[in-house]
Amino acid sequence: MKKIISSILFLTLLTSTIYGQTGKVFDNLTVTSKILKDERKYAIYLPPDYETSERSYPVLYLLHGAGDDQTGWVQFGEVLHLTDKAIKKGEATPMIIVMPDADTGKRGYFNDISGTWRYEDFFFEELMPHVEQKYRIKSEKRYRAVAGLSMGGGGTFMYALHHPELFSSACPLSAYVGPLTVEQLKSRLDRGEETYKEADLQPYFDRHNALSLIESVSVDDIKSINWFIDCGDDDFLYEGNSLVHIALRKKEIPHEYRVRQGAHNWTYWRESLPVVLSFVSDTFHQH
Amino acid sequence: MKKIISSILFLTLLTSTIYGQTGKVFDNLTVTSKILKDERKYAIYLPPDYETSERSYPVLYLLHGAGDDQTGWVQFGEVLHLTDKAIKKGEATPMIIVMPDADTGKRGYFNDISGTWRYEDFFFEELMPHVEQKYRIKSEKRYRAVAGLSMGGGGTFMYALHHPELFSSACPLSAYVGPLTVEQLKSRLDRGEETYKEADLQPYFDRHNALSLIESVSVDDIKSINWFIDCGDDDFLYEGNSLVHIALRKKEIPHEYRVRQGAHNWTYWRESLPVVLSFVSDTFHQH
Amino acid sequence: MKKIISSILFLTLLTSTIYGQTGKVFDNLTVTSKILKDERKYAIYLPPDYETSERSYPVLYLLHGAGDDQTGWVQFGEVLHLTDKAIKKGEATPMIIVMPDADTGKRGYFNDISGTWRYEDFFFEELMPHVEQKYRIKSEKRYRAVAGLSMGGGGTFMYALHHPELFSSACPLSAYVGPLTVEQLKSRLDRGEETYKEADLQPYFDRHNALSLIESVSVDDIKSINWFIDCGDDDFLYEGNSLVHIALRKKEIPHEYRVRQGAHNWTYWRESLPVVLSFVSDTFHQH
Amino acid sequence: MKKIISSILFLTLLTSTIYGQTGKVFDNLTVTSKILKDERKYAIYLPPDYETSERSYPVLYLLHGAGDDQTGWVQFGEVLHLTDKAIKKGEATPMIIVMPDADTGKRGYFNDISGTWRYEDFFFEELMPHVEQKYRIKSEKRYRAVAGLSMGGGGTFMYALHHPELFSSACPLSAYVGPLTVEQLKSRLDRGEETYKEADLQPYFDRHNALSLIESVSVDDIKSINWFIDCGDDDFLYEGNSLVHIALRKKEIPHEYRVRQGAHNWTYWRESLPVVLSFVSDTFHQH
Repeated sequence: MKKIISSILFLTLLTSTIYGQTGKVFDNLTVTSKILKDERKYAIYLPPDYETSERSYPVLYLLHGAGDDQTGWVQFGEVLHLTDKAIKKGEATPMIIVMPDADTGKRGYFNDISGTWRYEDFFFEELMPHVEQKYRIKSEKRYRAVAGLSMGGGGTFMYALHHPELFSSACPLSAYVGPLTVEQLKSRLDRGEETYKEADLQPYFDRHNALSLIESVSVDDIKSINWFIDCGDDDFLYEGNSLVHIALRKKEIPHEYRVRQGAHNWTYWRESLPVVLSFVSDTFHQH
Repeated sequence: MKKIISSILFLTLLTSTIYGQTGKVFDNLTVTSKILKDERKYAIYLPPDYETSERSYPVLYLLHGAGDDQTGWVQFGEVLHLTDKAIKKGEATPMIIVMPDADTGKRGYFNDISGTWRYEDFFFEELMPHVEQKYRIKSEKRYRAVAGLSMGGGGTFMYALHHPELFSSACPLSAYVGPLTVEQLKSRLDRGEETYKEADLQPYFDRHNALSLIESVSVDDIKSINWFIDCGDDDFLYEGNSLVHIALRKKEIPHEYRVRQGAHNWTYWRESLPVVLSFVSDTFHQH
Repeated sequence: MKKIISSILFLTLLTSTIYGQTGKVFDNLTVTSKILKDERKYAIYLPPDYETSERSYPVLYLLHGAGDDQTGWVQFGEVLHLTDKAIKKGEATPMIIVMPDADTGKRGYFNDISGTWRYEDFFFEELMPHVEQKYRIKSEKRYRAVAGLSMGGGGTFMYALHHPELFSSACPLSAYVGPLTVEQLKSRLDRGEETYKEADLQPYFDRHNALSLIESVSVDDIKSINWFIDCGDDDFLYEGNSLVHIALRKKEIPHEYRVRQGAHNWTYWRESLPVVLSFVSDTFHQH
Repeated sequence: MKKIISSILFLTLLTSTIYGQTGKVFDNLTVTSKILKDERKYAIYLPPDYETSERSYPVLYLLHGAGDDQTGWVQFGEVLHLTDKAIKKGEATPMIIVMPDADTGKRGYFNDISGTWRYEDFFFEELMPHVEQKYRIKSEKRYRAVAGLSMGGGGTFMYALHHPELFSSACPLSAYVGPLTVEQLKSRLDRGEETYKEADLQPYFDRHNALSLIESVSVDDIKSINWFIDCGDDDFLYEGNSLVHIALRKKEIPHEYRVRQGAHNWTYWRESLPVVLSFVSDTFHQH
């Protein structure tokens, strides 16, 4: 009797090993933020073997662009289908993907200049601890990656350059690299009717564009991150990304850089995602 | 022994729920209609990851032709197999497909001329709210599409042109575009022994054929829908579809139009379905 | 020893002629025309086995559009590569393809209204006899086809409808079907500063547009030709082709009609050519 | 004796059966140059159907880099194999490829600053007329393209920008875009012990780097050329190519730009060649 049951169990395990093959996506989860005084939404991708194993996983924070929210990579980016496929083909290792909402309340991934809206603090002090505790996520630098598109590409640059001790790879796609001059920053703030002290402009500028940070952050810290930078030849953000490539080359910081046929749209990013998944997996695999 | 069997059953259910990578079709669901004073049937397709994820999905309303009912696209159209395949190949995004019955009580997708049978009202006021509440369906225009064949192609034209604020894409296949003259309408009503007032004929005609609506609906509204129109070169409905193509071109309204080898039959429509799924997915994807 | 070498040389030449498996294209041939008082150019495609066999072949007259000349189908249409490939795959039977220049002196395939420029007479009285005598071309209706694009699609319609006794298949692609009204004809003539008698307008119109000819030529004659009509959904010539489809359907004249994705360009026509070759081959093969 | 001949016959038949269908490369041809007072070498690729047809062909001038000569693209670039393959697959149209030697006597594609060595004049006044007369090459701008790598990428930029009336497409690969400052030019000349007048420096600089020419040549002229620019992310020539991309985008000049994984080597260029062949074919084809 026992034998029959264990045979059934064995067969069931066998078939679930063979046929267990889709991941799961939840696109309407919440975390309570004291810093932002709100319930904040996020979406998550769990790999196909998440529920049948007890292991912990590397994590990719995947950031949406302006105008989207936490569902953007789910609906337009086909994160479930593309990640399942990449894992099945052996091009990506099973990982958890966290997609936070940076569109509610105020748009963007950073603390504002006056310090009243502190999204970046929320990200590092509340969201990251929340998901790392709620899901079986490995917490070493080696197993943490960040990627994002457009505004989320900017988040990717800044998060990695502000916290090189936390990320082993960073993949800004079609990234807004930040204001290219202090004047650009100023006019953006004025347009948004944000209040600021004149004296804060330069320090805020220095901390929120990739080119300044490449100059100010130590070369060793930047080199401790594996970079994959990608921007279509018809993308309106061509200039910032070209200048970042030049700046990194001049400082001899290794990085992958790609310019493919395409513009600032989801057709481009759906092509980029499998490459990103494979790239961060190489880092997760590295010894 | 019974215990073993029920264990097996449980395990089987568990594994097939978690690991069965196919979508599901239910073809005998019902919704109570106060408007039509009846239980109305519909069929639904849920994508492979519906039960294992908690995200919401775009929706396609897929309309059958005269003589079929809600099971037409399931039995003859192979909606399960073809949609699963298109999703697996990455040519379609996971979506929910709703297939209502327009064959019981009275045939067709519209309110009748006397206002005693109000199917169109049922569709928008009862069926749509019902499925959008019962299933995880996104409710913005961007994520709602309508398609259908023959009489259901007519439903597709009219629903989209009556409610351009609700649909982002519309795919009439081998469509009956409505009566081409008031006389045609009149003789159809007389054949059906429907009672009507003479004065209602012209307004009813104007509202129930695609050519009149293309003239009366604002160009911006019609342009807010992505159109895919398809009719075989041996189809008996060649004239209406050719005239719609000419009318849309003359008003410079972008639309995809196809004439392939074939007649008014399921061989043709089974070839059209994957193209429709890919076309509406492009809209759901933005690019 | 010298003899052996020259034998080898001879055999090498012979075999490379025999086994070099490509057809030949000549794009700068001439025929003397008394009617047009000029040397007229044409291009020709000879099938791979033309020089190694002694058989005769079916012939396809393939007409270029306005602005091109006899080299259009060679350079832009890839007639050599595509025909070789279609023959190799067994989708087309070996045939000779004749591509006349209708761009020199005066543009177009027809006699003009005043009878001073008689291109159509040149085609039937001089070019056809010339190539049928110079090359091993079968001269029965069954083995003669005509196809062409745009202005050459108009030539295809009119040549076939003027001489149904000469062509077994006709394939107008993205065809200019002729002026849709006498006024259109008049304004075209006035624009070109052509002299004409008012009384000649209606008869000339009746003879030079497909829609009038479909009405006036006997149904049996039109049916004696196999028709393949093809025009992209973004082509500016959509109206004439849609109306021809409607007119032929109303007269119950069998014809293949296609509308694919595409506009008035060579990308479209390079996709059409293999279908045309296969279609006319089916006719050549018919018993 | 008979036996030898029949063996030869058999081998000939065998090889012509197997190998009939390839293009031909000659890599040691010469043209007499009065300008350079020398016999100059060049290599040529003729497409598979060159000898069996009598049509004329488009032409691609394909320039080698520093340290190579006219055999570079033949030996290292696999021009025969890759072009045959691209033509066979229908990705390239049959074309003639001319590969001149710019390594003998003095290295480079330009007239020198003192006017004693006039390679550019030789190219346009002697080489081009020679090959266009000796081979069946079409001589309109539409059918002439130029491409090259490294130093030959610089030749590509400058030839196309000096003579926009002659080339319809230009494909600089991993291009040396010229000296980025007058000082760089000066130090290069001094290193090469070239004599020059101080006053000639600025004009020579202005004419021999892509960035200056993009500013001085009319936008319409630059736009009349289809550009394909490609440079690996690990290539040491990253800066000039990035700046050219920025400069062209700022002037809103359409161009294809690619950055793939790779450095300044033949592995990269062998991957680029098929893309170049397809790109110039699109231009030769119109659409």
